[in-house]
Amino acid sequence: MTKSVVIAVDAMGGEDAPIKILKGISYYLKKNKNVFFKIFGPNSIIQKELLNNSIPKEYFEIINCEQIINENDTPLAAAKKKNTSMMMAIDDVKQKRSDVILSAGNTGALFVISKLNINMIENISKPALAALWPNKVDMNIVLDLGANVECDEKNFEDFALMGSALHKALYPFHDSKVALLNIGSEEIKGHETIKKAYQILENKKNQLYDFCGYIEGNHIMDGKVNVIVTDGFTGNIALKTAEGTANFISMELKKALSDGIIAKLSSLANISNLKKFKNLFDPRLYNGAIFLGLESPVIKSHGSTDYIGFANSLDVCVKTVNGQLIEKIKKNIVL
Amino acid sequence: MTKSVVIAVDAMGGEDAPIKILKGISYYLKKNKNVFFKIFGPNSIIQKELLNNSIPKEYFEIINCEQIINENDTPLAAAKKKNTSMMMAIDDVKQKRSDVILSAGNTGALFVISKLNINMIENISKPALAALWPNKVDMNIVLDLGANVECDEKNFEDFALMGSALHKALYPFHDSKVALLNIGSEEIKGHETIKKAYQILENKKNQLYDFCGYIEGNHIMDGKVNVIVTDGFTGNIALKTAEGTANFISMELKKALSDGIIAKLSSLANISNLKKFKNLFDPRLYNGAIFLGLESPVIKSHGSTDYIGFANSLDVCVKTVNGQLIEKIKKNIVL
Repeated sequence: MTKSVVIAVDAMGGEDAPIKILKGISYYLKKNKNVFFKIFGPNSIIQKELLNNSIPKEYFEIINCEQIINENDTPLAAAKKKNTSMMMAIDDVKQKRSDVILSAGNTGALFVISKLNINMIENISKPALAALWPNKVDMNIVLDLGANVECDEKNFEDFALMGSALHKALYPFHDSKVALLNIGSEEIKGHETIKKAYQILENKKNQLYDFCGYIEGNHIMDGKVNVIVTDGFTGNIALKTAEGTANFISMELKKALSDGIIAKLSSLANISNLKKFKNLFDPRLYNGAIFLGLESPVIKSHGSTDYIGFANSLDVCVKTVNGQLIEKIKKNIVL
Repeated sequence: MTKSVVIAVDAMGGEDAPIKILKGISYYLKKNKNVFFKIFGPNSIIQKELLNNSIPKEYFEIINCEQIINENDTPLAAAKKKNTSMMMAIDDVKQKRSDVILSAGNTGALFVISKLNINMIENISKPALAALWPNKVDMNIVLDLGANVECDEKNFEDFALMGSALHKALYPFHDSKVALLNIGSEEIKGHETIKKAYQILENKKNQLYDFCGYIEGNHIMDGKVNVIVTDGFTGNIALKTAEGTANFISMELKKALSDGIIAKLSSLANISNLKKFKNLFDPRLYNGAIFLGLESPVIKSHGSTDYIGFANSLDVCVKTVNGQLIEKIKKNIVL
């Protein structure tokens, strides 16, 4: 039996907190036991909410902190608040009392406070935000998604080695294949920084991942590569554009399948297939963005997800720790 | 009756040319008459293909040119070839003998040769490539899509005024609403160039279009704005990512709706709704990228589209001319 993963949970972040946080923990514990939760938040509120959820007491501990970071606090204002649930949870990881920190709260605050408090991994130029993104075969890691608006070639190189380490930690049985997101697949395409990054990655090919060159936006989901490296501006826009496109299509599909009685009945007959289809695009399955480059894993759950989405980000926490994400990043740096 | 629009058509560009080109012209003429085609290509090949298509002779003229630009010619190599169908068609527009040029051939070559030959509109810093992109309400114009990998704030300003002029030319009954594509909607988000562009557009608000601030990738298709301005790197990746996402989803949907006999029967019962849905996402409907900033409109059809897609790009040609695109751009500059 492996050692329990200790997760520092900010119970007060995201819509409907702490209700969905505790419900998510309870839901996760039904299937997974090798885990221990340090729940950061106001004791009275957490205790009250615990009455609605069956979480066996050997699986958690409450750390009382009365202060809360709000969604509209600026990162710097948030960082100045003392004893917030987010700050205390981050500090717990910094002190190595927890293995990983998870919050569904203010994204900017989480990253700024984490960066201010947790040491950077040596030789990593900038931390990056990575997310999961489905492809035809399995799952992509895409980074950076907004932590760095402008990047140089060294940043791209670091993103490649951190992204492939994350891919290996989460999906140990798949080969990691790295590509740079660009506007064409020929070597001459793109701006100077991306061309330099291409040369560095091409020359540094190592045994931990394959470098597969450039990839265009329309091939992100083909499944031929699974670690997609880009700057935070492009990555953020690409991910959100995909999200917007998927929403638009599913809305129109919903209309098409419910417009008229024949449509309704035939969709009903086809319900199990449509359910499978719907599940494939359920954003809760891909919930959990990972902040890479610090000495401990920092995970962000989507603020508006529900308890099932939150439970999925708990799964990401456990996998990054058991998959030895930080060790794998350091190994990639040395190579 | 308005004056016929004269279209210079490069008959030798794109997959399956000139077959789909002539079939597209024939198809277009069935519904539209106020148009005249100058067809550039080898006389013998065009004449032969004309036998398979009923194109009344008062609607076209063949201009014989034996040379052809290939898909894999570099733009500069293509520009050096003499008397190619593409070059001659561009020259015809330059000489004001045609109103607009359309090609389904080599994109890079089309833009480089057009830029080398047709004058830029005075006070436009850089030409840009614009495309149509559906939204919940009507249609977006998105630019730049790859002509300019790096842009400054003056370029963004020019893209806004050219994009809104194009929107007005194509959709005269809709208000033009311009937004800058960014990674957040707050003023502090994004890189320095985009912040400067925001200030310029905010200060220059005019009567021809509304400037609506920043838009994020997930809201491109909401229909609250309809002219989306970005640099060529980001725009290219956003458009292609949307395309890849739509393909991925429709493939999975196809699987879901044909997996098993009940699925097949119920989808059959629902066929008219699904057809409507499919049509909405038919890329042939949005065929036709527009190269903006030159003294004449230059239109690019997708190389792999069929004759229906090609006919739709003929429609874009006619609308840009009848909608007085160039005049509208110049009017926007003066304001």
